[in-house]
Amino acid sequence: MKKMALTLTIFSLFGISSIASDTLIEKAKNAGLKPIPDNQAELYQLIDNPKNPITEKKVALGKMLYFDPRLSKSGLISCNSCHNLATGGVDGVDVATGHKWRSNPHHLNSPTVYNAVFMQKQFWDGRSPDLEDQAQGPIQAAPEMAATQEHVEKVINSIPAYVEAFKDAYNDPNFKPTFKDVADVIAVFERTLVTPSRYDDFLNGNDKALTEEEKEGLKVFIDKGCVSCHNGVGLGGSMQPFPAVGTYKYANIGDFKGDKNGLVKTPTLRNILQTRPYFHNGAVWDIKEAIKIMGETQLGVKISDEEAEKIKTFFGALTGKKPEIRYPELPASTNDTPKPDLH
Amino acid sequence: MKKMALTLTIFSLFGISSIASDTLIEKAKNAGLKPIPDNQAELYQLIDNPKNPITEKKVALGKMLYFDPRLSKSGLISCNSCHNLATGGVDGVDVATGHKWRSNPHHLNSPTVYNAVFMQKQFWDGRSPDLEDQAQGPIQAAPEMAATQEHVEKVINSIPAYVEAFKDAYNDPNFKPTFKDVADVIAVFERTLVTPSRYDDFLNGNDKALTEEEKEGLKVFIDKGCVSCHNGVGLGGSMQPFPAVGTYKYANIGDFKGDKNGLVKTPTLRNILQTRPYFHNGAVWDIKEAIKIMGETQLGVKISDEEAEKIKTFFGALTGKKPEIRYPELPASTNDTPKPDLH
Repeated sequence: MKKMALTLTIFSLFGISSIASDTLIEKAKNAGLKPIPDNQAELYQLIDNPKNPITEKKVALGKMLYFDPRLSKSGLISCNSCHNLATGGVDGVDVATGHKWRSNPHHLNSPTVYNAVFMQKQFWDGRSPDLEDQAQGPIQAAPEMAATQEHVEKVINSIPAYVEAFKDAYNDPNFKPTFKDVADVIAVFERTLVTPSRYDDFLNGNDKALTEEEKEGLKVFIDKGCVSCHNGVGLGGSMQPFPAVGTYKYANIGDFKGDKNGLVKTPTLRNILQTRPYFHNGAVWDIKEAIKIMGETQLGVKISDEEAEKIKTFFGALTGKKPEIRYPELPASTNDTPKPDLH
Repeated sequence: MKKMALTLTIFSLFGISSIASDTLIEKAKNAGLKPIPDNQAELYQLIDNPKNPITEKKVALGKMLYFDPRLSKSGLISCNSCHNLATGGVDGVDVATGHKWRSNPHHLNSPTVYNAVFMQKQFWDGRSPDLEDQAQGPIQAAPEMAATQEHVEKVINSIPAYVEAFKDAYNDPNFKPTFKDVADVIAVFERTLVTPSRYDDFLNGNDKALTEEEKEGLKVFIDKGCVSCHNGVGLGGSMQPFPAVGTYKYANIGDFKGDKNGLVKTPTLRNILQTRPYFHNGAVWDIKEAIKIMGETQLGVKISDEEAEKIKTFFGALTGKKPEIRYPELPASTNDTPKPDLH
């Protein structure tokens, strides 16, 4: 009896479990799931924008600007205010709240900046093709940072260290940074905010990277059909029909209708346990409830409490390793820097 | 001729200049100026609170809580929102602005958290004896973080990683963190936010740490009498009569009257070029204007434009080296974490 148990254990360790995992990796890949590459060159290909190439100097400058509240009209709100790198890249409130405590007029929730580079489009209605374009939006939006392009340009050009950093990053002694340049370097920094997780290790071939329970959750996740929208490297990021808008339980929160075809960008599931509340309107705070609602309204399937628990367990493996961020010391304002305007 | 020049140079390098600096160091010390000690043990003595001793674990936990907006009612405002470590430890606006975009009712400006440990009292009216007590204020103040003690305790105790970190920091497996404990570890972190500068190197004996122009500025600073309030390690921090309240040019901004005796805490001059606007009401944006007003209203002396320029040059040497802060990854909320309340 003891011998048999031992044999089974060995078989299980080196045999069945391994075969089962290989099968699961294949199954996951066949379902459209893709890892963040563990090869740096391959990753670079994936996150770079040839029209705005990633360089160390642009990343360093973009990081400073990402954290600089002086880009906003009030001087109090930075990119990091709503996309807080300490809290999963989000603000943790249901509705994005900015200048003068105004809320997003459609009651939209701030999506995470982590892995945003993997989204096919930006914003919930996908109106922006890339991060360079996206970064220009919130800086100018009245209920967000509420700044004019002119304000941003005046601020940057009034601070010699910023002007020097742009000249250095673009290797041009006559460089005079514009609003677009500010958005570009912020976007470059954001492109580096990818968070490889144990899930990626698994898909990259490390069978032991996931626990048995997480593998079980991944299976349920695939079998229930969640992968029909949450796929690719981003586990989301494509525009999808969202018929639930207007019909599901919390649809009366906000008046968002998606893009002109009613399509809505699928949010990433990476770091999802760090980014509550959920959905475009931040209406649901419990991930299991969110999983069940999505099954019912998007897939037309019932997801039991036990199945939701398993999927949640799998989601734990999607919490990724964040890039190490040294909090920047920003260069001081000068007498030429526009004064912040709280009104 | 060449030999004589050489002799003079040597004399100047090892003789006159050195004597002059020694004299200036003596003069500065006699005027009540003190450096941040370059000896770590001595520094520790100066910044530690025996009732709440500094430990690495408390610093690490305090840093996380300092950056955690979930301590606030809205979930959007952290200690760092108004005392931003990226911008000299301040918010860069004239009047502190918090929950629901409310302004400080007395139009008070957020003082810097850097070197706050060297202040003899905390808050502009000195009502708080130390950072442990001070840290409890803004978390609860309606126009700041607007939280109740109960909210803070519920948040912390709903996040297992925080509870574990407290148990670990206090070496007590049954530790149940209270509001006071939260303020205590934040205060410990703040005690470490000291910024030694070239000015300190100079007072600690390195004659070459200041330029000749900065030494000249330091002399003017002493001779004009600025040291009568801006002295000690903090270059400020004591309660002083502020007769200018109510009489000077910008006195009509805000209704702050100081403590019950009309005394006002002298702000530190460390990192002063990074912490505009100036004065308790943030009324002045130009450091030279601030210097001149202080001479006229506090000391009854006229400070010329040239003298103000020299003092400003000296102030440049007060910009200190900030502690390296790795931006924290905060533990995720749970279903037990109170939802933020934006209203």
